Amino acid sequence: MTYDAHPTGRVTYSNPPDLFDPTGPWSIVASGGPFVFLAGMRGIDPETNALVVGDTARTRQVFTNLQRAARSVGLDLDSIMRLTVYVTDMAAHRPLVNQIQQEFWGNGPYPPRTILEVSGLNQEDFVEVEATLYRAA
Amino acid sequence: MTYDAHPTGRVTYSNPPDLFDPTGPWSIVASGGPFVFLAGMRGIDPETNALVVGDTARTRQVFTNLQRAARSVGLDLDSIMRLTVYVTDMAAHRPLVNQIQQEFWGNGPYPPRTILEVSGLNQEDFVEVEATLYRAA
Amino acid sequence: MTYDAHPTGRVTYSNPPDLFDPTGPWSIVASGGPFVFLAGMRGIDPETNALVVGDTARTRQVFTNLQRAARSVGLDLDSIMRLTVYVTDMAAHRPLVNQIQQEFWGNGPYPPRTILEVSGLNQEDFVEVEATLYRAA
Repeated sequence: MTYDAHPTGRVTYSNPPDLFDPTGPWSIVASGGPFVFLAGMRGIDPETNALVVGDTARTRQVFTNLQRAARSVGLDLDSIMRLTVYVTDMAAHRPLVNQIQQEFWGNGPYPPRTILEVSGLNQEDFVEVEATLYRAA
Repeated sequence: MTYDAHPTGRVTYSNPPDLFDPTGPWSIVASGGPFVFLAGMRGIDPETNALVVGDTARTRQVFTNLQRAARSVGLDLDSIMRLTVYVTDMAAHRPLVNQIQQEFWGNGPYPPRTILEVSGLNQEDFVEVEATLYRAA
Repeated sequence: MTYDAHPTGRVTYSNPPDLFDPTGPWSIVASGGPFVFLAGMRGIDPETNALVVGDTARTRQVFTNLQRAARSVGLDLDSIMRLTVYVTDMAAHRPLVNQIQQEFWGNGPYPPRTILEVSGLNQEDFVEVEATLYRAA
């Protein structure tokens, strides 16, 4: 179903061809039965493997990447069971995430979400989103 | 099964009528196959949509809300697969969460838990709990 | 399948006999249908119930404990759907986690991962790893 899929016999790990390359010991997608778990997505430009410049553009890239990861296994945003959103400044970044989610989801319905301010993200980034998806039979 | 349910064709999102209204682009409950994922629950009073005053009372409200969300889809606390607990002061809040969990669970058994101190929560709150539940066939 | 298993009628909680004792109101493993959710694992020595001394040794113990928890229900590291890694110093601890994961996973494939710097962990620890696993039919 995807290029570069690595079945372990239990779970299949895959890295969508239209996303960035993982830069460490991790994969982007895990598929097991009806569930799909994604690695935390950040605003990395798949063309350059560099972080997108600009807070709004980078936050938009987070959700573009998340949607591409979902689509790589035949799903989409309406399959999301929960988003956990990590930001480094709640006051500055929560409104931005809300705005971009409205771009992607319109009037909803929206998935459950937990939003947290953490001390730091990899590469001194400011927003990361972890998603879990369900594949209806 | 609940009022105000929004099926996407893949996942059903719902907001229990006896809980607070989500104040942003998110739902409280997602149901997909045998799994139920909840948004992070905080100590918001469903009568007023305001945070409960008092650390102990607010922490108790977190678990009251979590239990109502579980019951809204026919489950209860004994269906929880894991709790992830976010507090802003580990030393001050972990004993409080332990105490309130003992009120709700008695002598157990207790679900797996991860407890983390984060820099901040929405509305400068101090405790939030994310739960995932399983619906036995 | 394990000693000390507590079925609730919905979910089964268990504490592997070759791991440390939970020190609070939580269990180590929850099994529900094809899914296994683990509590956040830290570098506690099951022989002494104390934190392992030394950053590298303690990080290795985290993954030893995680693997023991997986094996206690008949699974292993290749069943992991996602790891969420919490560290208290991204610059210092992320390379260490990468190194230890390479010890355990070799050349991969690796599960999806989210890595976050948080303000604090229980017992002033510096690394904790939360894992979710899938049991293939």
